Amino acid sequence: MSDTILGIDPGSRKTGYGFVRREGNRIHHLDNGVLQLSARAPLAERLLELHTGLMALIGRHHPTIAALENVYFARNPQSALKLGHARGVALLAAISGGLKVFEYSPAEIKRTVTTTGRAEKGQVQRMVQILLGLPEIAQEDASDALAAAICYCHRTPPERDTSR
Amino acid sequence: MSDTILGIDPGSRKTGYGFVRREGNRIHHLDNGVLQLSARAPLAERLLELHTGLMALIGRHHPTIAALENVYFARNPQSALKLGHARGVALLAAISGGLKVFEYSPAEIKRTVTTTGRAEKGQVQRMVQILLGLPEIAQEDASDALAAAICYCHRTPPERDTSR
Repeated sequence: MSDTILGIDPGSRKTGYGFVRREGNRIHHLDNGVLQLSARAPLAERLLELHTGLMALIGRHHPTIAALENVYFARNPQSALKLGHARGVALLAAISGGLKVFEYSPAEIKRTVTTTGRAEKGQVQRMVQILLGLPEIAQEDASDALAAAICYCHRTPPERDTSR
Repeated sequence: MSDTILGIDPGSRKTGYGFVRREGNRIHHLDNGVLQLSARAPLAERLLELHTGLMALIGRHHPTIAALENVYFARNPQSALKLGHARGVALLAAISGGLKVFEYSPAEIKRTVTTTGRAEKGQVQRMVQILLGLPEIAQEDASDALAAAICYCHRTPPERDTSR
């Protein structure tokens, strides 16, 4: 039995994504990257780009699970609002594509990947590279997305997944 | 020449909407209401309900313009984040439906409808009722959505609309 998991790290300027396939206890890397949204386009158009981009990726890899960081704080209301726009559209794409959505705290994701909830960004990137055997370190947002996908694999072992 | 304008007042629990048609200098009320999202459903599912609901309304009334309040502050990052999710999905629905999006500050909308930027909620509801000749006062979120649509009509007179 195998599952394809889409990790998403949403943002209103760029959104990281990462696909992994879980087969038994093994995790294989499939794809990762960053959707760069047109910096000069109005927000609504960037959201359409984001939605279209995610739907295309979902169509290509046919994931059944989406994994995202949940957010309980932000620097300020204005940045929370912007992040919320992108996050809402990412969740919509996932659920429209028939994916089951799982959310994890930033500390939970870091702990799964690096064994500490307070890891630095660079440590997460390096551990994601090692765990997935990537030839090089993934871009920061893509790496965060892959970390969320890895977190799902560790938190929901195949035999304990009662969702099917 | 006539335009149909969709006003939206997005929220993650309920989203107000209002449709008006502008013919020359006259504004006619077409429809208004509140999309109540399933209180117990996970956020991602509520966002799908919201998107589906707005797309159905757009399909029914064929608006060409969307008008929304822009938000520059919120009580706290957490409520800004939630609002952002709904607002992002509302913007996506508008732009996917081919609508041109216009945003106005809360004070700008209140000033257009009541002549003061500091009007109370009840005043806005009452003035929206009078301006559109509604048989009764619209629900608060629907009334705010109609107020945004009215704001568009006043701010972009037909002869000055250079978008076509």
